[in-house]
Amino acid sequence: MADTRIETDSMGEIAVPAHRYWGAQTQRSIQNFPIGVARFRWQASIITSLGILKKAAALANRELGELPPDVADLIIRAADDVIDGRLNDEFPLVVFQTGSGTQSNMNVNEVISNRAIELAGGQRGSKTPVHPNDHVNRGQSSNDTFPTAMHIAVGRELHRHLLPSVRRLRDTLAQKAAQFGDIVKTGRTHLQDATPVTLGQEIGSWVAQIDFGLAAIEAALPGIYDLAIGGTAVGTGLNAHPRFGEQAAAHIAQITGLPFRSAGNKFFALSAHDALVHLSAALRTLAGGLMKMANDVRWLASGPRCGIGELIIPDNEPGSSIMPGKVNPTQCEALTMVCVQVFGNDAAVAFAGSQGNFQLNVYKPVMVHNVLESIELLGDACLAFDEHCAVGIEPNRARIAENLEKNLMLVTALNRHIGYDKAAAIAKKAQKEGTTLREAALALGYVTAEQYDQWIVPHDMTHNG
Amino acid sequence: MADTRIETDSMGEIAVPAHRYWGAQTQRSIQNFPIGVARFRWQASIITSLGILKKAAALANRELGELPPDVADLIIRAADDVIDGRLNDEFPLVVFQTGSGTQSNMNVNEVISNRAIELAGGQRGSKTPVHPNDHVNRGQSSNDTFPTAMHIAVGRELHRHLLPSVRRLRDTLAQKAAQFGDIVKTGRTHLQDATPVTLGQEIGSWVAQIDFGLAAIEAALPGIYDLAIGGTAVGTGLNAHPRFGEQAAAHIAQITGLPFRSAGNKFFALSAHDALVHLSAALRTLAGGLMKMANDVRWLASGPRCGIGELIIPDNEPGSSIMPGKVNPTQCEALTMVCVQVFGNDAAVAFAGSQGNFQLNVYKPVMVHNVLESIELLGDACLAFDEHCAVGIEPNRARIAENLEKNLMLVTALNRHIGYDKAAAIAKKAQKEGTTLREAALALGYVTAEQYDQWIVPHDMTHNG
Amino acid sequence: MADTRIETDSMGEIAVPAHRYWGAQTQRSIQNFPIGVARFRWQASIITSLGILKKAAALANRELGELPPDVADLIIRAADDVIDGRLNDEFPLVVFQTGSGTQSNMNVNEVISNRAIELAGGQRGSKTPVHPNDHVNRGQSSNDTFPTAMHIAVGRELHRHLLPSVRRLRDTLAQKAAQFGDIVKTGRTHLQDATPVTLGQEIGSWVAQIDFGLAAIEAALPGIYDLAIGGTAVGTGLNAHPRFGEQAAAHIAQITGLPFRSAGNKFFALSAHDALVHLSAALRTLAGGLMKMANDVRWLASGPRCGIGELIIPDNEPGSSIMPGKVNPTQCEALTMVCVQVFGNDAAVAFAGSQGNFQLNVYKPVMVHNVLESIELLGDACLAFDEHCAVGIEPNRARIAENLEKNLMLVTALNRHIGYDKAAAIAKKAQKEGTTLREAALALGYVTAEQYDQWIVPHDMTHNG
Amino acid sequence: MADTRIETDSMGEIAVPAHRYWGAQTQRSIQNFPIGVARFRWQASIITSLGILKKAAALANRELGELPPDVADLIIRAADDVIDGRLNDEFPLVVFQTGSGTQSNMNVNEVISNRAIELAGGQRGSKTPVHPNDHVNRGQSSNDTFPTAMHIAVGRELHRHLLPSVRRLRDTLAQKAAQFGDIVKTGRTHLQDATPVTLGQEIGSWVAQIDFGLAAIEAALPGIYDLAIGGTAVGTGLNAHPRFGEQAAAHIAQITGLPFRSAGNKFFALSAHDALVHLSAALRTLAGGLMKMANDVRWLASGPRCGIGELIIPDNEPGSSIMPGKVNPTQCEALTMVCVQVFGNDAAVAFAGSQGNFQLNVYKPVMVHNVLESIELLGDACLAFDEHCAVGIEPNRARIAENLEKNLMLVTALNRHIGYDKAAAIAKKAQKEGTTLREAALALGYVTAEQYDQWIVPHDMTHNG
Repeated sequence: MADTRIETDSMGEIAVPAHRYWGAQTQRSIQNFPIGVARFRWQASIITSLGILKKAAALANRELGELPPDVADLIIRAADDVIDGRLNDEFPLVVFQTGSGTQSNMNVNEVISNRAIELAGGQRGSKTPVHPNDHVNRGQSSNDTFPTAMHIAVGRELHRHLLPSVRRLRDTLAQKAAQFGDIVKTGRTHLQDATPVTLGQEIGSWVAQIDFGLAAIEAALPGIYDLAIGGTAVGTGLNAHPRFGEQAAAHIAQITGLPFRSAGNKFFALSAHDALVHLSAALRTLAGGLMKMANDVRWLASGPRCGIGELIIPDNEPGSSIMPGKVNPTQCEALTMVCVQVFGNDAAVAFAGSQGNFQLNVYKPVMVHNVLESIELLGDACLAFDEHCAVGIEPNRARIAENLEKNLMLVTALNRHIGYDKAAAIAKKAQKEGTTLREAALALGYVTAEQYDQWIVPHDMTHNG
Repeated sequence: MADTRIETDSMGEIAVPAHRYWGAQTQRSIQNFPIGVARFRWQASIITSLGILKKAAALANRELGELPPDVADLIIRAADDVIDGRLNDEFPLVVFQTGSGTQSNMNVNEVISNRAIELAGGQRGSKTPVHPNDHVNRGQSSNDTFPTAMHIAVGRELHRHLLPSVRRLRDTLAQKAAQFGDIVKTGRTHLQDATPVTLGQEIGSWVAQIDFGLAAIEAALPGIYDLAIGGTAVGTGLNAHPRFGEQAAAHIAQITGLPFRSAGNKFFALSAHDALVHLSAALRTLAGGLMKMANDVRWLASGPRCGIGELIIPDNEPGSSIMPGKVNPTQCEALTMVCVQVFGNDAAVAFAGSQGNFQLNVYKPVMVHNVLESIELLGDACLAFDEHCAVGIEPNRARIAENLEKNLMLVTALNRHIGYDKAAAIAKKAQKEGTTLREAALALGYVTAEQYDQWIVPHDMTHNG
Repeated sequence: MADTRIETDSMGEIAVPAHRYWGAQTQRSIQNFPIGVARFRWQASIITSLGILKKAAALANRELGELPPDVADLIIRAADDVIDGRLNDEFPLVVFQTGSGTQSNMNVNEVISNRAIELAGGQRGSKTPVHPNDHVNRGQSSNDTFPTAMHIAVGRELHRHLLPSVRRLRDTLAQKAAQFGDIVKTGRTHLQDATPVTLGQEIGSWVAQIDFGLAAIEAALPGIYDLAIGGTAVGTGLNAHPRFGEQAAAHIAQITGLPFRSAGNKFFALSAHDALVHLSAALRTLAGGLMKMANDVRWLASGPRCGIGELIIPDNEPGSSIMPGKVNPTQCEALTMVCVQVFGNDAAVAFAGSQGNFQLNVYKPVMVHNVLESIELLGDACLAFDEHCAVGIEPNRARIAENLEKNLMLVTALNRHIGYDKAAAIAKKAQKEGTTLREAALALGYVTAEQYDQWIVPHDMTHNG
Repeated sequence: MADTRIETDSMGEIAVPAHRYWGAQTQRSIQNFPIGVARFRWQASIITSLGILKKAAALANRELGELPPDVADLIIRAADDVIDGRLNDEFPLVVFQTGSGTQSNMNVNEVISNRAIELAGGQRGSKTPVHPNDHVNRGQSSNDTFPTAMHIAVGRELHRHLLPSVRRLRDTLAQKAAQFGDIVKTGRTHLQDATPVTLGQEIGSWVAQIDFGLAAIEAALPGIYDLAIGGTAVGTGLNAHPRFGEQAAAHIAQITGLPFRSAGNKFFALSAHDALVHLSAALRTLAGGLMKMANDVRWLASGPRCGIGELIIPDNEPGSSIMPGKVNPTQCEALTMVCVQVFGNDAAVAFAGSQGNFQLNVYKPVMVHNVLESIELLGDACLAFDEHCAVGIEPNRARIAENLEKNLMLVTALNRHIGYDKAAAIAKKAQKEGTTLREAALALGYVTAEQYDQWIVPHDMTHNG
């Protein structure tokens, strides 16, 4: 077509859409990897992170005298366009490409090169005055840049989206726990009636579990802050200035406001991504906790009449296309489906993480893709669950009271006074005969009415302040 | 805004964009489930399948006298618009919604209702003359329609995309196996030199493995052909005509050209999706086989000088942004990343499949999403691998010959003549002293030169015809 | 010590306990692989299967003139001792050894050799008149014998243990479904009250799901019947008589009574174990179904007073060390823990299955170990669940009736008469005001009392005959 | 039989072998849970930990006046017998029992009770003067004791076995890295020849990766140190002295020498085991790193003649029953099989961890079983790998030098001098024509011979000091 221009790389010439900033290698990748095109183009967080990296690299190279200041400045200006999202359409590549992410590294090299050339009044594809490899990629290799961009994207998305979203849900639940701290209710173990707890204790347990997940994620962050940049092709830093990695990392930290730093062992940083595997596991731990919480919510809200029915959750939409008036715990369902997806994503990440060879793990794109997907989904789902379910959770006080009153496990409070064996006899008699615990206890003569009323006080059994 | 109209459902009124066909329940879902919006809107195959289902349902209801013919015809015409993809933009909902897919079922009910009303000259949102629940959803529940659409989509995508794509790669490899059937080369077990095989045998093993995967998928198809339709809310078929499920399934079979049929046990068809779990496992089996093949290809092509180097694969793009002239097995990398994704997706599917309760499994959307993603990615990756790698695989005859000649495990052919222990002594001596096997054999005096040359004939050792 | 004798192999001499039949290579493996010794010694099914294989090989080699009849007969007699379990203590090796199972193949070669030598009046370790490699391993390699033994063991254990155990549970449940076919109860979707089902339908759904799992296992059996024997080292059959594989397989079929046969592609049979992966997935499918069933049982039995309480399950033991009289669904818990273990085992199998290289997959032992463990645990757990839970399941008729009566979703039967929207209004009014459905319906004036009683008949809603 | 005595519990009487210390509830569990009996009896670490817990509980109860000193002392003496392993045969129960571990808690209660009674001169089964529930289980529930024992066992095994074993391997590798720090060799990325590294850098990367895994495990330890004790049945601490949990934990810390402590939120400690899930993930991370290392070792040692052949690993045993003289990387195979098992175990743990309900997660036994199995296997395999492989790793200096010399990627050093494009042309020319890089460089005229020799110095390219 008339609408193409010719770009070249070490394989030779190739036609590229004339209006695009990308060059030969991006074009080859488009043609070679038509895999999942509709859904697997890199999301903005990776593109932004590649832009941040290239800007930081140019800043470092300028300081170290590795790039002429004017070339560095052109790169920085073009990189800012990438960072600001103005060139997102120039990144057409998908996750399932080369396992090092080389083509996406070249994509950003080519786009910045051509945008910088344009800023300098030059001609796209001329590689002058800004060459994609010799200048934009100066002191770099895909093998250190792509994992660096992976860590930048993951670190930023955690702070921008996941952590605040989860904390918001956590705070809502903590507030509910405080609000319902005095409601005594039936505890349940093995799904069977057990000794009482307060609703505050029950909800507080979810909060503690979410806190554990959050702490696991925070504990995994230092590994994410370690950047591969400076390792170049195999970890030795060949062709990079000896201080390049450190200074590029410092600029990345400055740009992002996060404590990124140059990794201690660059060979490890290229050949393995255990920091991502470890973070993915922390996301899985969080997902496991959210799943337990969401399951508890829907079971406690089950009914409305033939289930447990102790919680009331918001009616957000008609629940059934055939059963009129039905209300379902749909936010729980969406959240638990997200949790299951996170479990699957984590399995992919861990598998991929074990498959490195020698100086490189070539499952980089699929690893970061899954981690970013999990981050996005968990963040989104926690926000939706918070807004459309958690904030509206209310106790069904009548049902809670009714269930508590008939709970045979209140008998446990008698253990200390009459021993386990006699207490068991009371509970079994009441269940068999369908009586109250008090009736059975008195009938057996193991306690007096006064003792019973003094010893069996559900609120006291919760040890709740 | 002025650009909305009011729709109603059993929850009350809600404003909907005026130009949209969807109604109240779709709108509520948009607002309640802003989860993964950029990547998790339902793909076309689900939308088309919902359209096929609704058309088949209207045909069946018309035949059974459950819908007035004119209403049925309006539904059928509107459903054809959905099937043809003309209304794809009217399906804004995402995977992570209610676990029954109710909102997507209502989405198609609403769109068809409003489109049918429009065709009849009525007013969108009026539910007259075509009501989304009473007419479009006649004799149906989300609980049977959504899993039916899941099966339609999976069955169609398998036949449209996955099976032909994988078979194409399989045939290319089979042709290579035939073409290279006479090339004798070093076998390898435990990564160590072993007795010889032909390249045809080696590649033929990949073909056999892919055939096994294909057979596993085909064996899982009958479960996919079983449709839940007719079960309605809980499997009893309440509110559906007794022959509805059977006739709707027959229409689906006719429309799709695939042998769909009414499932034998509708309670099972709603409360569990073991057919999907089973198919997902078959996809995993195939992915495992493709992974083994792709790993073999890249290891055999490793080098070019410091690896095994027995295969030559196409140079599709520059391999490195820093190492000039480097060529990498990128198609192997993309394919193995896809395989790892399929492993992760399968883990999610199996987990979700185990979590049903009572009359419903509420992980339907996430299950079908992962299965469809695996189908798409495997199909795409096999096509790309076929075109950009498999068709261009060539043997490096010089390297193969050199490796074969120095392979000490040719000694195995002597077992039958001099016994394992003496044969072992020959191999160990040759390796220790860096000599040829022949030299070591003669030096030890266990065979004569004539015997050696008669007994050790690599081609004969392959038993290849 | 005085209690050792010297055995030799191609590595040289090594002391072996004098009273043991095993030889040098077994001894080296004991010393080199002290991994999980307390729990990971090969179980009897693998030892028996190795014995069956060696007997069949000797029979085939005798017929084919590859072994002198007297040597073959000695091997057969010794192999019978292995098959009968008399020499189980002579198999000290563990799962985590060489990935081909070579050491266990040599273990059986050595034990049979020495036992045969003993039968012939010779001296252990002399390798005369029966050499472990040249005679017992005649026409074989670990690479084909070990996977053959894997398939024999798996096939036999499936038929001996798993299939009958699962079928027994299935039949108990089918009998319960028939017995309780007339009990109408509340259905539940999304954990919320839904339209009615019979208890027979509910239990019948579990039966259908177990049937699906059983069918999946049966469909995977043909792959298990394919035997690698005859492929020797790399699949070519080097050093084996051309008809050896076929005849050995025929003897294995005859000995076991199962339709084992020589695999069509021996290269595939050595380099991949997709048949095991596929079977493992079928076990996982079954486990998923059992998990759903067991979860339904424990939720339906939850209470006794503050849960659903519609089923009564046997009290087998005190449920709590602190709560007197508590009864827990412990069989459900044991079974679901087994299911989770099967899920984990399957993940290991599938991972291992994807890691073959060239002519061999070197994860054979860990694959068969996990498959056998899953078979054993599922079989045991189904038997225990059957005997200690399923046979004793009883309906709590009073609770079922009470729950059914208050179930608002009976309103669904009105859809066909008054439309979804009015039916929804009735249900919502009843729930809001705490009235019965009938009261709300009449209050709204949408139906007459006669209509209500005619249209809302729970038993009819189940469409159960 | 004459050899039984009658024990009783709240279910009634049951015959128990007369010579056993266990009582009624243990006996019931034996009969009710014949699941995996041959391999799934609790290992010693759990038994010891239950003993430690019961001793600590008795010490705390004595201090707090909750038990008479003489009863407490009897319990402590009996518990010491458990801790010392003298009563291991008295613990016949298996993993697949009730999901709370109640039966194993009762097993230790019964054994200690009867042993204490015996020490006091009483009669087994009399529950006097030491009652299993009222005294041994004083202030406890299975729901807090069993998870406490889980944590004690995991913490102790990590310190006793895993950490020292892994560190030993790590130190061997670190020493090898130092020893071979000056050997320059071909780097490899994408399995293709890349710029040089030193063997010290390559091995050092494995060390860094193992260090990361160790750090992940250490970071997970604080969660393991948190003990559920004091929570009793549902987390409230009902029937326990308010200071009991804290003091029992202090005694556990004192007995084990590890910083165990009372968990902050007991509800969370009973209803979820995220600390175990998190630790399991850390074990998985370590396993992923070990897998990468072991794969590198076997690939670098592949050959001996037709592979990479740069490393020489110890010959520990004959590698093949058919191929004489073959040596295989069997320690790598055993270790990677263990890693795969750890992956599977972790999948089971994470799944189980997500399945808690309300106040209890009833997958406790299967969770701790898998974690302990992973700990044991990883520890054992690292020791075996260290002793039988790592300590004997030697470089094949001739092969390394040969591979380095022909490596075309040395051209990368020219990038800075002549640019990426010209450097690529040199590499491609050399590969195409089969010449050395130097010949191609000079032929193209891009560098002089002096420049070539000055700029391409492999050792300098490694930036190794």
